[in-house]
Amino acid sequence: MKEIRVALIGGGGFMGRAHSLGYSVATQLSEVDFRVRKSILVDVDGDAAALAASALGWEASSADWRSVVASPDIDAVDIVTPPGLHKEIALAAIAHGKHVFCEKPITNDVPGALEMWDAAREGGVTNQVGFNYRHIPAITHAKELLSPGKLGAPLQFRGTYLHDALFFISDFGWRGSKATGGSGATGDIGSHLIDIAEYLCGPIVRVSALQVTRDRSHADSGWHKTTDAERGELLDEAATWIAEFENGTIGTFSAGFYSPGKKNALAFEIDATGGAVAFDWNNPDQLIVDLLDDQAAVAGPRTVEVSQGIQEDVWYPVPGLGQGYVDGMAIQLRRFLQAIADDRPATPNFGEAVRIQQVIDAIEQSAFTNAWVTMPDRPKGI
Amino acid sequence: MKEIRVALIGGGGFMGRAHSLGYSVATQLSEVDFRVRKSILVDVDGDAAALAASALGWEASSADWRSVVASPDIDAVDIVTPPGLHKEIALAAIAHGKHVFCEKPITNDVPGALEMWDAAREGGVTNQVGFNYRHIPAITHAKELLSPGKLGAPLQFRGTYLHDALFFISDFGWRGSKATGGSGATGDIGSHLIDIAEYLCGPIVRVSALQVTRDRSHADSGWHKTTDAERGELLDEAATWIAEFENGTIGTFSAGFYSPGKKNALAFEIDATGGAVAFDWNNPDQLIVDLLDDQAAVAGPRTVEVSQGIQEDVWYPVPGLGQGYVDGMAIQLRRFLQAIADDRPATPNFGEAVRIQQVIDAIEQSAFTNAWVTMPDRPKGI
Amino acid sequence: MKEIRVALIGGGGFMGRAHSLGYSVATQLSEVDFRVRKSILVDVDGDAAALAASALGWEASSADWRSVVASPDIDAVDIVTPPGLHKEIALAAIAHGKHVFCEKPITNDVPGALEMWDAAREGGVTNQVGFNYRHIPAITHAKELLSPGKLGAPLQFRGTYLHDALFFISDFGWRGSKATGGSGATGDIGSHLIDIAEYLCGPIVRVSALQVTRDRSHADSGWHKTTDAERGELLDEAATWIAEFENGTIGTFSAGFYSPGKKNALAFEIDATGGAVAFDWNNPDQLIVDLLDDQAAVAGPRTVEVSQGIQEDVWYPVPGLGQGYVDGMAIQLRRFLQAIADDRPATPNFGEAVRIQQVIDAIEQSAFTNAWVTMPDRPKGI
Amino acid sequence: MKEIRVALIGGGGFMGRAHSLGYSVATQLSEVDFRVRKSILVDVDGDAAALAASALGWEASSADWRSVVASPDIDAVDIVTPPGLHKEIALAAIAHGKHVFCEKPITNDVPGALEMWDAAREGGVTNQVGFNYRHIPAITHAKELLSPGKLGAPLQFRGTYLHDALFFISDFGWRGSKATGGSGATGDIGSHLIDIAEYLCGPIVRVSALQVTRDRSHADSGWHKTTDAERGELLDEAATWIAEFENGTIGTFSAGFYSPGKKNALAFEIDATGGAVAFDWNNPDQLIVDLLDDQAAVAGPRTVEVSQGIQEDVWYPVPGLGQGYVDGMAIQLRRFLQAIADDRPATPNFGEAVRIQQVIDAIEQSAFTNAWVTMPDRPKGI
Repeated sequence: MKEIRVALIGGGGFMGRAHSLGYSVATQLSEVDFRVRKSILVDVDGDAAALAASALGWEASSADWRSVVASPDIDAVDIVTPPGLHKEIALAAIAHGKHVFCEKPITNDVPGALEMWDAAREGGVTNQVGFNYRHIPAITHAKELLSPGKLGAPLQFRGTYLHDALFFISDFGWRGSKATGGSGATGDIGSHLIDIAEYLCGPIVRVSALQVTRDRSHADSGWHKTTDAERGELLDEAATWIAEFENGTIGTFSAGFYSPGKKNALAFEIDATGGAVAFDWNNPDQLIVDLLDDQAAVAGPRTVEVSQGIQEDVWYPVPGLGQGYVDGMAIQLRRFLQAIADDRPATPNFGEAVRIQQVIDAIEQSAFTNAWVTMPDRPKGI
Repeated sequence: MKEIRVALIGGGGFMGRAHSLGYSVATQLSEVDFRVRKSILVDVDGDAAALAASALGWEASSADWRSVVASPDIDAVDIVTPPGLHKEIALAAIAHGKHVFCEKPITNDVPGALEMWDAAREGGVTNQVGFNYRHIPAITHAKELLSPGKLGAPLQFRGTYLHDALFFISDFGWRGSKATGGSGATGDIGSHLIDIAEYLCGPIVRVSALQVTRDRSHADSGWHKTTDAERGELLDEAATWIAEFENGTIGTFSAGFYSPGKKNALAFEIDATGGAVAFDWNNPDQLIVDLLDDQAAVAGPRTVEVSQGIQEDVWYPVPGLGQGYVDGMAIQLRRFLQAIADDRPATPNFGEAVRIQQVIDAIEQSAFTNAWVTMPDRPKGI
Repeated sequence: MKEIRVALIGGGGFMGRAHSLGYSVATQLSEVDFRVRKSILVDVDGDAAALAASALGWEASSADWRSVVASPDIDAVDIVTPPGLHKEIALAAIAHGKHVFCEKPITNDVPGALEMWDAAREGGVTNQVGFNYRHIPAITHAKELLSPGKLGAPLQFRGTYLHDALFFISDFGWRGSKATGGSGATGDIGSHLIDIAEYLCGPIVRVSALQVTRDRSHADSGWHKTTDAERGELLDEAATWIAEFENGTIGTFSAGFYSPGKKNALAFEIDATGGAVAFDWNNPDQLIVDLLDDQAAVAGPRTVEVSQGIQEDVWYPVPGLGQGYVDGMAIQLRRFLQAIADDRPATPNFGEAVRIQQVIDAIEQSAFTNAWVTMPDRPKGI
Repeated sequence: MKEIRVALIGGGGFMGRAHSLGYSVATQLSEVDFRVRKSILVDVDGDAAALAASALGWEASSADWRSVVASPDIDAVDIVTPPGLHKEIALAAIAHGKHVFCEKPITNDVPGALEMWDAAREGGVTNQVGFNYRHIPAITHAKELLSPGKLGAPLQFRGTYLHDALFFISDFGWRGSKATGGSGATGDIGSHLIDIAEYLCGPIVRVSALQVTRDRSHADSGWHKTTDAERGELLDEAATWIAEFENGTIGTFSAGFYSPGKKNALAFEIDATGGAVAFDWNNPDQLIVDLLDDQAAVAGPRTVEVSQGIQEDVWYPVPGLGQGYVDGMAIQLRRFLQAIADDRPATPNFGEAVRIQQVIDAIEQSAFTNAWVTMPDRPKGI
């Protein structure tokens, strides 16, 4: 049985905990034909690294990521540092032939992301980016229901990702500034909507967008269009955009950090030629499914509990036991590990991350120029 | 007690029935200080008019609207004909000094609507247009909760009005063609979203839009951007647009006739400086309200039953008895009659209808030109 | 076209308004082959009667119900007085050969109710009791879905009817005292659950119950089992009971006036051999339907919008327009009028009201004796 | 840092996997001041034990539970075998001074359970039973909101635990027969309702119950009252009961394995003197909370997302990330381990398990005798 030795870089924070849990759960969630070792946890603060390694079940700790990614005792590198460090670490790991999992955004600029994608392709390493929501059973099930499934081809996508937490920008260190990798509402959470929309509806061809920022000088002021000065520094707090897809689907998107009462409220609806499907992360085990060919007397949106008997990813023998954030994290990491075990590419890969950054760039450019922006070509190899 | 004698023009169809019910319920719903007489029902088909008048409680019937709107025995004219006839009838009624209620759209072109508004203002008659959803207790309550209420100033509006009934276009005679007054998804149902959005969030200043049409040659084809040829004839089946409001609010809108499982699904959410409010016509008595200053232990969206003790418009002494479509129709007509009784303007008036048509025009132009369109000045007198 | 001349007795209050609206809406809701005249409204207070008659569209008013029920100009008598007066008025009306609609409870004792049922049967008049919820389209639809429909035979019934309004007992004059016809939570609202349960699941054969009352001396005291003294006077504020039905169905019921946040919250679920159906009055147009033979990938509770295309009772040509309390009132009165027009019995009739009172009595006896109580034979002729 | 070495007995099945995950997650979920070692997994089938140990991260495996519970290298024994074996293993483990976690039901008879409780008390070992739902953050939060919190004292409890899976009885080996520890709908899932009800509302004093079984000879037959013969063998498939609590609360309960569309549908509502609280496992992160003193304009049930900022048990720094079945399992096991680390009793302990078995016995006796059954004294020491 193949053994995969993982190094977690930047493991002292929230994402370090989430990924540590993910690796522990990944291999117990269902039967797998590989073995994973949580070999070493790295953090710039060595004491924090030692503490986290001990608490989260890693065999060793280190403050020196450079030596770790070069070590022959490591097969895969998982990067959960602030985004500003992603590229350097990933390129080094790839140079040493390591498989790489990198949290999103891999970088906040297309050229940097492209550099990582090219390196990963040339290095022939398995690479994956942390768009975790795509992996939860409900989304996988939605994908299967769409073309060529019962729901047919998409016609319209309506997605929202809303929070009521301004502190995501003001408090979360690196998130508040572009310099350290902050990416605003569009990049930070809107990116998940973009990933899901393209995963389920195909490529976007053009976008028209609005991005706004609140006046920070007093608390309850309204939003205004993000100014040039803010764009360089403060980042957008909310954004909304419309899009046209290659297959004719039209899309409507909203992402924002200041929607009262919304708690990680990622939700979407897709109208399609054979029916419709809707998802809301606040009820993550459920899909709402409409079928156009239902008998009138019993026609209506069905609340489908996505569980055993439907999705192999759900290990429970009992439907309705419930999935949480950790389960989704575990499924995404298990897929990464499985791809390594099978010696094949993982998905979504760095190329797909480039693509998402292209869309984010187009949205920003559209908001800035007050014009539709047409998407550039998709990166090669995806 | 003032008596208001009403003539209903075009009363042989669905809207004739709805308004007939509305007048019967309007004065029994709560105490009023006027009396209404359902004096005469007019339909181009005299037999249909006689049948409908008898079934729906009108004192008389006629096939000749011209003589009716000129009659000294009529105080108010209510127009529910296909939109193509609205202007001629309304102008004649105004010329005879009648108060006029006109179903929406009063016309599908701004100049025509403006002509009606100017005539009504010059004629000094009470005039109202049938944007009925604005009148239901939940929306009235939302208005009161917003600035300067607990919810504060709007930041973001997200609205959808979706149906799964393509037949609205293909089957509903006049709706399928511009010539007879059809106005597509944007004009037919999107107009209600525009009315509500401006009612609650203030004036829109610019829009960027997409409008689409399906290929009619086979049933399950996807949508494509409405072509010029279709634009002249088939009208849009679905549309989505983003908007910026004068006060900085950003808006996202979708209107469509082909969303599987959606039944008259008019819904919106407003994020504001003090909280949020959401509405869904499929649960018309309820508002979902979030308050930012809730204690953490019990914070969360509240499902507020909008009923007695909150809204005077709800006549029931028992909360939770439930409002339907007829109740909303009755409230709107009661407000029209009350304005006549009080000899004051009603709202939304023909000028507001002009304004909504301006927004619809801007959306169509934006979809056509692939560019943001800035709104013209609002009509005088609103 | 047959004309039915109605007298409304006790029309000065809430139910007078509700029934007045009901008669106005009943004949406009859909095409009918009879005509109704709101001939006279009676109230013990003659001024109130005159005022109400004028406001609610009745041709005349009176303070003398005795002469009215004897008048040759009246075909049907509708009784909405406090329950203490129901029997006397109904017997007099029947004696004069009038058809009778009587609000529930027709009386609060089985012998009295039986006397009314016997008189009505012997008099050969159409008679109906005001269990209005049975008539709303969603319940009618549930009935059709059950045996021999897709849902099959009932296995379990779980019903609740909960209010947060204690004032129903303390404030509502006659409701607080047995003498004037008050009937506690079991009789006042639980009776609707009993009607619906037997309508959908067949006869109950035995019950075991708890009834409770709060200590009135201070506001936030808890409940205690209703004492003998209270039983004679204060009536139960909340009750819960289990039941066995003739066909093996088991039932669980709760009725109460002191459930915080509940607004006329009548709801039930029925598990059956082929699926399940659930209803909640707070979303009165919807049924939640589960089908056991659904394909796993799309199995789940469906929210069925009960509307045109399914139910003839819904007049709207557009699904999703929404039903309210008035619509349900109108449907029940239309069915009463239609039965008169067709010269046939209506339902639920006085015999069914006797039956419901039998169940209420059994519940009270069970709560009093702390024992299961077996139901007596059903009244003859139902 | 204290180290706790755990042996898992019966680990080759579903619960073995669930507990294995639970231990892995328990110590990473939040900071703890102890260390856990998954020392050995035992299964009667030695090969299965070896396989499971390897897959689920245990250091060793064994087929001989007797030697394991006697080993000086084990601190705590976790028993997840079929219930028929619980007692023997637990008594042996206690005899060797081990702390014991035992899945529910610890046994299906009160004397047996009492024997285990007495042994555990006398042995002075930390003991806990697997009523896992009590531990999830939403239930903990409900407990805090009730007396002496904002919601005040309970008045009414309504609980349901429903499944659509008959196979729980027919397919799940030991569950179908009393001999091997099967306990029917009342014991298997109803027991969770009893645990939660007494945890939140205090002791039950008497019950009146119905239990039913379907005729197995043909598939879609209805239920009938469980016969004596079936009682000895087939066990109840559905049950419903009412109860009176010591503090005057009244309770209504339903548990069943044959409710179409229900997936592990554990739900309850509690009406209290200051408000109400409701929970539904299908949305496990949410509580619905009503407060009687809400301002009318914004009064209504709140959907409270039970997450960081409210509950320390939720490790996520981001509200709304979502809890699943594994999280609840981990929290319960962490509390067991923490109690061991702190050298103090855990809860719910074996005495509480005795108590729940007392209630189950009373329900069965009530269903059998068709009479109210008064609860015996609670076990000593709880």
